[in-house]
Formats: sequence, C-alpha cells, structure tokens
Amino acid sequence: MSLTSSLPSSVDVTALVAGLPDGCVIVDPSRMDAYRHDRARDPGAGTPLAVVRATTTEDVQVAVRFAVEHGLSIVPRGAGSGLSGGSSAIDGCLVISMERMRAIEIDPVTRTAVVEPGAFNAEVKAAAAEHGLWYPPDPSSFEFCSIGGNVATNAGGLCCVKYGVTTDYVLGLTVVLADGKAVKLGGARLKDVAGLSLTKLFVGSEGTLGIITRIVLRLIPAQRAPSTLVASFGSLDSAIQAVLDITRRMRPSMLEFMDKASINAVEDLTKMGLDRSAEGMLIIQSDEPEVYAATEIAEIAEMCEANGATEVFSTDDPETGEAFVVARRMAIPAIERKGSLLLEDVGVPLPQLGALCRGMEAISSAHDVTIAVIAHAGDGNTHPLIVFDPMDADEAARAQLAYGEVMDLAIALGGTITGEHGVGRLKKGWLPDYLGPDVLDLNHKIKNALDPSGIFNPGAVLEHDPSRRE
Amino acid sequence: MSLTSSLPSSVDVTALVAGLPDGCVIVDPSRMDAYRHDRARDPGAGTPLAVVRATTTEDVQVAVRFAVEHGLSIVPRGAGSGLSGGSSAIDGCLVISMERMRAIEIDPVTRTAVVEPGAFNAEVKAAAAEHGLWYPPDPSSFEFCSIGGNVATNAGGLCCVKYGVTTDYVLGLTVVLADGKAVKLGGARLKDVAGLSLTKLFVGSEGTLGIITRIVLRLIPAQRAPSTLVASFGSLDSAIQAVLDITRRMRPSMLEFMDKASINAVEDLTKMGLDRSAEGMLIIQSDEPEVYAATEIAEIAEMCEANGATEVFSTDDPETGEAFVVARRMAIPAIERKGSLLLEDVGVPLPQLGALCRGMEAISSAHDVTIAVIAHAGDGNTHPLIVFDPMDADEAARAQLAYGEVMDLAIALGGTITGEHGVGRLKKGWLPDYLGPDVLDLNHKIKNALDPSGIFNPGAVLEHDPSRRE
Repeated sequence: MSLTSSLPSSVDVTALVAGLPDGCVIVDPSRMDAYRHDRARDPGAGTPLAVVRATTTEDVQVAVRFAVEHGLSIVPRGAGSGLSGGSSAIDGCLVISMERMRAIEIDPVTRTAVVEPGAFNAEVKAAAAEHGLWYPPDPSSFEFCSIGGNVATNAGGLCCVKYGVTTDYVLGLTVVLADGKAVKLGGARLKDVAGLSLTKLFVGSEGTLGIITRIVLRLIPAQRAPSTLVASFGSLDSAIQAVLDITRRMRPSMLEFMDKASINAVEDLTKMGLDRSAEGMLIIQSDEPEVYAATEIAEIAEMCEANGATEVFSTDDPETGEAFVVARRMAIPAIERKGSLLLEDVGVPLPQLGALCRGMEAISSAHDVTIAVIAHAGDGNTHPLIVFDPMDADEAARAQLAYGEVMDLAIALGGTITGEHGVGRLKKGWLPDYLGPDVLDLNHKIKNALDPSGIFNPGAVLEHDPSRRE
Repeated sequence: MSLTSSLPSSVDVTALVAGLPDGCVIVDPSRMDAYRHDRARDPGAGTPLAVVRATTTEDVQVAVRFAVEHGLSIVPRGAGSGLSGGSSAIDGCLVISMERMRAIEIDPVTRTAVVEPGAFNAEVKAAAAEHGLWYPPDPSSFEFCSIGGNVATNAGGLCCVKYGVTTDYVLGLTVVLADGKAVKLGGARLKDVAGLSLTKLFVGSEGTLGIITRIVLRLIPAQRAPSTLVASFGSLDSAIQAVLDITRRMRPSMLEFMDKASINAVEDLTKMGLDRSAEGMLIIQSDEPEVYAATEIAEIAEMCEANGATEVFSTDDPETGEAFVVARRMAIPAIERKGSLLLEDVGVPLPQLGALCRGMEAISSAHDVTIAVIAHAGDGNTHPLIVFDPMDADEAARAQLAYGEVMDLAIALGGTITGEHGVGRLKKGWLPDYLGPDVLDLNHKIKNALDPSGIFNPGAVLEHDPSRRE
C-alpha cells in the first residue's frame, strides 16, 4: 500500500527543469528511490514525480509555484534522518530536498548563526565552536541530521534537560509559503514582539505550513568540559527515584537512562564492560565550573548511593565521560541489530516516569515483545524501542499493538506521544486522542489558513481536513 | 476622540451578572474608570459596557459567550501596566480583568509553576524562590505587572541578555477561544512536539487570539548573587563600543545602558552620586560562580577602560550592586517627572546600536524635543523616552513626529518597533512598515482563523481586516 493521492499521475516537468539551475531536478526512478523514505522506513511511502534539490530560496519558490500550478503535493526533506515518517514521499508529489543548501554564517557580536536548512547539526556546532560559541540542541543523530529537520520537528537531544530544545534557539526564519511567496520572520534580535509569534509557529510544523529556507539561530558561549557520572541500579524503581531526587535539587547538563535490554545491546556491540546485570543505568553530566562540577557530581553520587546504586563511577576526564555518552547514543543502532524497530518518543511529567516505565513492562509482557527503553530521563522523555522480527507476521502485529498502547499509556499519564521526533505519518493516528477535538480543530484552522489547498506535506501530522475547501 | 465601535450601545447585562459569582461584574462608571487605560494612558481609550473580574476559567468562558451572543468586543486586562495601549478599553466593550485570578503552585520536581494570569511577576519569583527556584524574566515593572500580561506581550527585562524572554519559559497555557471553549495547550513537559506550536503562538499575541487563564512556566535553579560593575563614559560611541566588545567575548547576566539625560533625571531623584557629566553609563552584572564572576568583571573593567571609561566601579556586594539596578529601573519614573512621555521600545541587531543612538540624537535635534535613552544594551533593545509638555501643543506635536521617526529609523536599521512592550494600539500604525505586506497578511490569516468575528481586543496590534467576514 502506498500513500495515494488523487493528483494527476503524469505532469510534464520540462518547465520545472528549465526554471531551475542545472542538476536540480531528478526524475530518474532509481535515483529518486533514496528520497522516498526517511529513517522510519515508512512502508506506505510513495514515489515522487520529481525531486528538486534546491540551491536557493528562489529555487524553492519556483518549485512551489510549479506545484501550485499543477496541483502537486510537496514533501519537504532535510537529511532524511526523521524517525516518524514526516518525509515519506507521496505518489506523484514533488520532493523538495534541502541537501544542497548548507551555508553557515556565524556573527560573534550578535552571537547568532544564519544557516541554510540542509546544513547538518554537527556542522553548525563546529562553525559556532570556531568562534568560541555553542549551538546546544543535540539529537543523537546530530552528525547526520539537518538543522532544517531539527527546526521542522523542534528537535531535542541530551542537553535539553539544562539547555532547552530547538525552538529556544530559533530567532528567525525565511519561509516559502503556499502561494510561493518568501517571507522573513524574526531576525538576529533576542527581543521582538511586533506582530504574532510566527517564527515559533513554524518551528515544529513538520513541513505542513511552508518550507523553511533560512534559519537565524541564537548561540551561547562554549560549554565547559563536563564531568561525568555513571550509576548502575539493581531495580528500575531505584534508578527512577534517583532521577527524581536529582531533578528536584539540581540541574545537571545531561541525565540519561538506559534499561537492561539497552545496556546489553550496547555491551554486545562495544564490549566496554557495562554491567549486564543492571536493571537501569544513569549517565549524568555536570558542566558547572571545576569545583562546582565536582561538588555537583559528588552530591549526585550520594543520591544514587542513597537509592541503592550497585555501582557508581565518576570522572572529570571529558574523553572518558564521552565514551559513555557515545554508548548511550549507540543504543538505537545497537538495538536495531536485534530486529526491526518501532521507535517511540513518549514523554510524561517527571513524577509519572516510574508509572510509564512500569506500564511499558506490562505492555511488553502482554504482547510478548521486547521493549528496550532509553530515556532523556531528566525531562521525562523516553524512547521505548519495540523490537520485532519482520519475517514473523504475528510478532510484527503484536509489536504494532504495543506501539499504539505505549502512546495510549503516555496520554493517560498526562504525557505526550512525541517529545522531539515529531508526529510525521506514523503517530498521526494518535494525535486526535492526545490533543482532543478542540485543540485538533485549532491545528486544522491554522493549517487551513496558511495552506488552504493542502499542498505542504499532506498526510503528515494532520489528516486531510474535509472542510478545507468549503 | 474615543475608540468607537458600531456595536450596540446598550446591552442588558443582567444575564451576565446572574451567570457569574457575586461581585464579578462592575457597571458603575466611576469604578470602571480605572479599567479604561493601561500605563500608556491612551487618549483614545473608550468606556466599557461592563468590567468582568473573573475568578476562574469558567467565568471567562461565561463572559466570552455573553460577548459573542451580544456582539460585544472583549478587551482582556492584567495589571494594567502595559506601555502600548494594548488594554485601552473600547466603547461598549467587555473588559475581562484577571486581577482576581492569582493562584501560584510550584512543583519543584518538574521545576514548573502553574500560575493564574493575574499573579504579579514578583509573586511568581517569590513563590519559586521558596523552593530554591527562579523565574528569570524581569521587566522593570516586575513588582506591579501581571504574569498574564507578561505572556501576552512576551515581556523581557534586564536578565534577557543571558536568560532569554518570557516565551522561553512558557511550557503550557489554558486559553479561552472565540467560541467560548477552553483549551489546554502544552504542559509541564520540556519536550512536546505533538501538533503545531500553539502555546508559543499565543505568547505575544496581546489578547488578540484568546484569553489566557492559566500558565505553566519553566523554572530554573536560583540565580547566584551577582557581582556588579558600573562604568561611566565621556562619549556615547565609546560606551557602545564597550558593549560590543563585551558581547563578542562573554555573556554577562545584565548589560544596561543609561544616557546623560537618564543619569541626570535619576540623580535628581536619588542624589546617589552618579556622574552627571557622563554621556553614558553601563551597569553590568555577572552571576557566574565566585572566582569566575571576579574574572569576568575584571575583564569587563579592562574592556571599559580600553574604551576610555572615565570611571569604573565594581562590587561583589549584592546590595551595593542592586542600588545601581534600582537606579536603572527608576529611570522611567524619574524622567516622567520632567513631563509627559512617549515611551519607545525599539530594538536593532547589536552592530546597529550606535547608528540607532546617533540617529535618535539627530531626531531629537530636528524636532527640538528631549529624547532620554535607557537600553537593555546587551540585546540591542532600547527605550528612548520622548519628553514633552502636554500643555504645549506644538511640542506635543513635535514629540509625536519624533516618536514615529524613531520607529522608522529602527526599521531602516533592520530592527523592530517593539522588543518587549508589544504593539498595542500606539505602535499599530508602524507595524505594516515593519512587517511588510506579506507577513502582515500572514498575521491577519492567523487572526481571522482563530477569531473570525474579531471579538478579541479589536484594534490592538492589527487594524480590522475588512476581508474578515467575507
């Protein structure tokens, strides 16, 4: 089954090719294949009419106007590292890829970066670092995800527990709208309240309101080298109680959790000596200045021990500490080796973290599927990874049931179905339950106001609103 | 001249009174007078039909439904400390005042506050401090402005140069919409990307999209006691060059500027010994841990001296430092004693700060009016205060011309007409020039989608859109 559309199946792209620089437009099916999916490998992904690899805002405008003229849908695309099917192609659509728009300019005086959306998160960090500055948001995929995709999903990461999420760093955007006009929103100013907060509205809109072609980011001074603490626990409850004790009293710069299945998957891969018997492991960092970091880490160690940690290790050597952070980042690829994955991104208010984890254990038992859990524990954002054998249809079906029940559980606990990956196409079915009818209706009203024909990423986040063309 | 409306001049409020708790509805003209203006004293303010002092979200819903039924406009109102006429009453409107909705609950585990909109900013800070937590945004009016008004205008303050603005701390909102429904947006979760970023859209919307009745705020650990440096300069240019040198290299927790007129007005009032001959004074704080603050302040002192500061004073005694911050906060009331004020809030990218200040000097000369300047210099946000004698019609007219030209200048320099006070009714005339037609159109599209009949704060921020009822 592919995402179908009632759009014309064949449109002559000659005018599109002629209107864009050489090499921008791909129509060769074998070359287009790489543009059909993101990392979620949505089985419903379709086949585009053409892929436009834009080089400028103007290129994007040309492509949008062509799409409008011919009634085509548009699927915008960054680096294709999305985990929710937000970039799944639609049959007969135009994919607009940002991979060639990668310029980065740093202004150290205003401490801002002006970035094209195709630049990788890691490239922005590196450019900022040349000026002693830092762009904090750090999704685990930071080495291969684009900053445009980060903005489109309001991406998070490991540092958010202290430093916030992508939207906290977005000061301005250039956006191509549904009529092909390009607008500049906000700019290199920390303060600007003239008119509605449109910049922030486009952050997290997953390509459904317009196409972001330029981003003004706030930077902050370089992070200090962190100290790291790793603690193993004999029970899930004690690990989670340690998390709550820590967040109540201090604000570490990282507070990550791995469960037994994740620890073992990573240990299988790395042989770095993680405690395979532990039910939970916390990886915690402090980036306070030297003496203060030492104090903070010592207090955290005490709290872990008071909660019965079986092993506590700490280091102020950044490289040793980074090895554990790498281990944490490696969890998804390590678990991917065990089978196909359904990757969740549910978040709850911190006091519900224990209930969420225990509920997921129950779901795992009930459906007899492995659910490995890694979490940005300090902000209640978990990534349950449901593992299944794709050749085992029954297990795959049970995994799918579990996938839905985990989101239902998060909603019941006052949480969200997605903290940082986006709704995309894979979680769309749960959005109405999460938002409720009134907030869902508000979402449709905004979508319809800005994209009345529904050309931008149709089927992502929101179902088509049948009232749209009334 | 008062803001007129084509609405029925007399509506029977019996049903409204009956539908709300005792004492909620005020119709006595002498008591309503206090609800006609905010601090901008908009001469065009009208007279409301009634004032509703809501006690709950449900009260607000009753009032909104009554307004819808009778075709009344609604002007929401916090503490009335607004500086742009955003809360000017309209003839025959319902004013919905939040002054009685002041509950504050702090959750130290999630480090959030759930706050009703009428609570003062200072009350939220105090409640957070009881748990060792901090709500950073600090408009100069923090002791008498409401948190709801802060959210409505995305208020800033002195700490923003390091800690950001109100929107950076808003995680969730309850909002009463134009059909009387109440919706909950976001919540006590740092990460949530399920659906469009509606929470952030309502921040800074100045009461034009709905009425905020409950706010979930992010808190951070208590600020360390700051060290303070005060530097006087013999020329404006050298003071501004010092600002740019500092922001390029570090991130102080405060970086304020006062010009000669402001210094002298404050000195008239306080006799605290400020240098009356200085052309500019910087008040700078560092809240880094002890040794680091001392280093930062020493480096800042060097940069001020290198730029020819005539006097540099520093102290690590918080009380001594606070006296200078109080002096800075006192600038507006001190200058108010010199005459009536037109209070600006223009901001520019930092490298344009000098051009903005020099341009304002030229405007002051051209129109022969005093323009005193205070500024959140570290983020390029200035508050030129145009002083005039209200009994001198010619001077008042020249002041009004200067008021507009300062905003024109900011726009020409790539800046904004308002950094933290809001557009309200007084700056509305300059918004189209600032936004340009396409972004203005986007603003209208959102407004019309959420408030199709235009009942919420009509005439604030945006002109009525004649296409709205098409």
